[in-house]
Amino acid sequence: MHCVSCFSSGPLKIQSANYFDAGKNVIMPTNSHNALNFSGGPGALPESVLAQVQASIIEVPETGLSILGISHRSAWFESIVRETENNIRTLLGLPENYHILFLQGGATQQFSMVPMNMLRGKRHAAEYLDTGYWSRKVITEAMREGPVRVVWSGENCGYRHLPREDELSFSADAPYIHYVSNETVEGLQFHRILGRDDVPRVCDMSSDFLSKPCEADKFSLIYAHAQKNIGPAGVTIVLVRDSVVQSAGQNLPAFLDYRRHVDAHSNFNTPPVFAIYVVLLVTRWLLNDIGGVENMARINRGKADLLYSILDGSDDFYRGWGEARDRSAMNVSFNLPNADLERAFFTEAKAAGFSGLEGHRAIGGVRASIYNALSLGAVETLADFMQDFRHRSGR
Amino acid sequence: MHCVSCFSSGPLKIQSANYFDAGKNVIMPTNSHNALNFSGGPGALPESVLAQVQASIIEVPETGLSILGISHRSAWFESIVRETENNIRTLLGLPENYHILFLQGGATQQFSMVPMNMLRGKRHAAEYLDTGYWSRKVITEAMREGPVRVVWSGENCGYRHLPREDELSFSADAPYIHYVSNETVEGLQFHRILGRDDVPRVCDMSSDFLSKPCEADKFSLIYAHAQKNIGPAGVTIVLVRDSVVQSAGQNLPAFLDYRRHVDAHSNFNTPPVFAIYVVLLVTRWLLNDIGGVENMARINRGKADLLYSILDGSDDFYRGWGEARDRSAMNVSFNLPNADLERAFFTEAKAAGFSGLEGHRAIGGVRASIYNALSLGAVETLADFMQDFRHRSGR
Repeated sequence: MHCVSCFSSGPLKIQSANYFDAGKNVIMPTNSHNALNFSGGPGALPESVLAQVQASIIEVPETGLSILGISHRSAWFESIVRETENNIRTLLGLPENYHILFLQGGATQQFSMVPMNMLRGKRHAAEYLDTGYWSRKVITEAMREGPVRVVWSGENCGYRHLPREDELSFSADAPYIHYVSNETVEGLQFHRILGRDDVPRVCDMSSDFLSKPCEADKFSLIYAHAQKNIGPAGVTIVLVRDSVVQSAGQNLPAFLDYRRHVDAHSNFNTPPVFAIYVVLLVTRWLLNDIGGVENMARINRGKADLLYSILDGSDDFYRGWGEARDRSAMNVSFNLPNADLERAFFTEAKAAGFSGLEGHRAIGGVRASIYNALSLGAVETLADFMQDFRHRSGR
Repeated sequence: MHCVSCFSSGPLKIQSANYFDAGKNVIMPTNSHNALNFSGGPGALPESVLAQVQASIIEVPETGLSILGISHRSAWFESIVRETENNIRTLLGLPENYHILFLQGGATQQFSMVPMNMLRGKRHAAEYLDTGYWSRKVITEAMREGPVRVVWSGENCGYRHLPREDELSFSADAPYIHYVSNETVEGLQFHRILGRDDVPRVCDMSSDFLSKPCEADKFSLIYAHAQKNIGPAGVTIVLVRDSVVQSAGQNLPAFLDYRRHVDAHSNFNTPPVFAIYVVLLVTRWLLNDIGGVENMARINRGKADLLYSILDGSDDFYRGWGEARDRSAMNVSFNLPNADLERAFFTEAKAAGFSGLEGHRAIGGVRASIYNALSLGAVETLADFMQDFRHRSGR
């Protein structure tokens, strides 16, 4: 067992260099199982963050209280919300006309909350892209609230690729367009911004938020649950332009009304104090240890390139799910030549200390999720294992 | 700083006797600030639970993974949900025709979710009791969803007492009656069950759930957020009779539809894994260390009786908010003779190591919240302080 005792001073400072260039680094020591957690989510968190979280369970240094027993109306918690907001604003270069909210209910709640606030009672259809497992869920919920037009669907291609620009045509009358920036199940990711500047863009960035720069100010609303790159399950982050809040629907249940949460500064009802505190620690890690989302993107790109090079060099032993141009830097989904080999792969991977490699139940296969906190070293270890497994299988 | 290092073996076993008879006990050592946390919520948690939570941040013994990075689709998490359900079922003697759900959004989400599922489209009014700060919020949300009749209101008495039985008359036609079992702000608690057996009872037990037996099988639906007696903010527990689920409204947003959560066994979308795990540990503590909710009730009654005896013996120096017959065993709300004395009380209490004694912003004054995890010893310490403060004030 990897043991981190609690400590009384400030944040544990990690040498960034260890993360960048070594692989076997102090953030993700390879003797910890957490280091090889390739789960699709909840994903792993940086070990330096875990050490601070661990101390806070007994006592948050500044307060003398357990993080689990601190009032959400305390000045301390207000300062936590403020710093987390500021960190996200800094990381994304987000202008002041955006509010940052910390809500509950996951992305699933936003599937409904977005059209409740932005579509109800509208005559023109909101325009949605159907690019995979999560898009389909989003569209189902939106259709309960108002008119929806599906601009493009990946159904005919089995969700193996994303639309090219010349396949898309957006209407100037739509209340908004909505898409999912990264489909975690299929491992497909947009590498450009969609839509038109005169129609509000809404984006589900649950699985790549803060993994790279995202030109946030081109969107009217971005939402992301925390449990991929930025914290534990239980908190959802919403960036919303003030003009959206001002023109949102009326007479909604209070907890589904963006206006209420903006007015109350994410403290309308008891917020998930613990989960927000963990997000704060992760944003500090991104700022101070990683050095920002540009650096994070470079690291993530390196991890993804390594795994895709294994796929591409495997003589069709590892078969990527999606087309190369739409490959995700977060979720590498692939199959082996047959089910027997996939079973053997899982068995041996587990024995070698890897966890979370099973593909989503919707499409099966293998999925290596390589979110922010997963180090290049861990990905190198997986790449070595994959090479070795292929050679032992006689390919 | 009070430091608990991580450990690799099973749950830390606490001697129940220390909790029962001593006051200065191992669960709530008086050298920990957490021990004197009288906050209205999020409330304190047992230190034995905190120690286990602390270890789990780095590694849950059975899994080798951090509790913050474990998949909600894992067999381990399924077993956690099952054991937590079973423990609650055992603690309350809950029959098999009830489902136990772990949701997000706090009691506030239930304020809307109950009438969405049970009132929409109904001709007859649901009957609500207006007994304090939280009742008023519940009623506001219910009225968005369907017809509501307020059976009784404490507005005329300034929310200083609860209704007597002869002041209440319930209709046989109501889809359900709703009340709040314990008003945390005013410190008023029902010591009986309201309503009639032929109309479904719905109860917000957020602030006294698992603090005592509650005859759960007389209710059709009980909801309680965790952050008073049973866990951290971020998870809400709903006990719902199967017949309610079967007859609930249709075409609701999926995450607001009890049916979906029942079918998915609280795993419809990513649940708050960490918060549910903490609730499990608290239910184990209630079962194994406290010995059940009857014992918990006895302890809680002793704590409350001690503080109320200080009020009653203070020659009107400490003035209880509510009438004696409706006093809460969870929240002891009172005033001092004037605002200067209250300010001095808070200043000295803080210096003496107490936290969270400020009354709710809605009514001011002092509030000592004495939830499950707060030991008799901590309450004795507060009682001593109160006696001393009064005498030093010349009374």
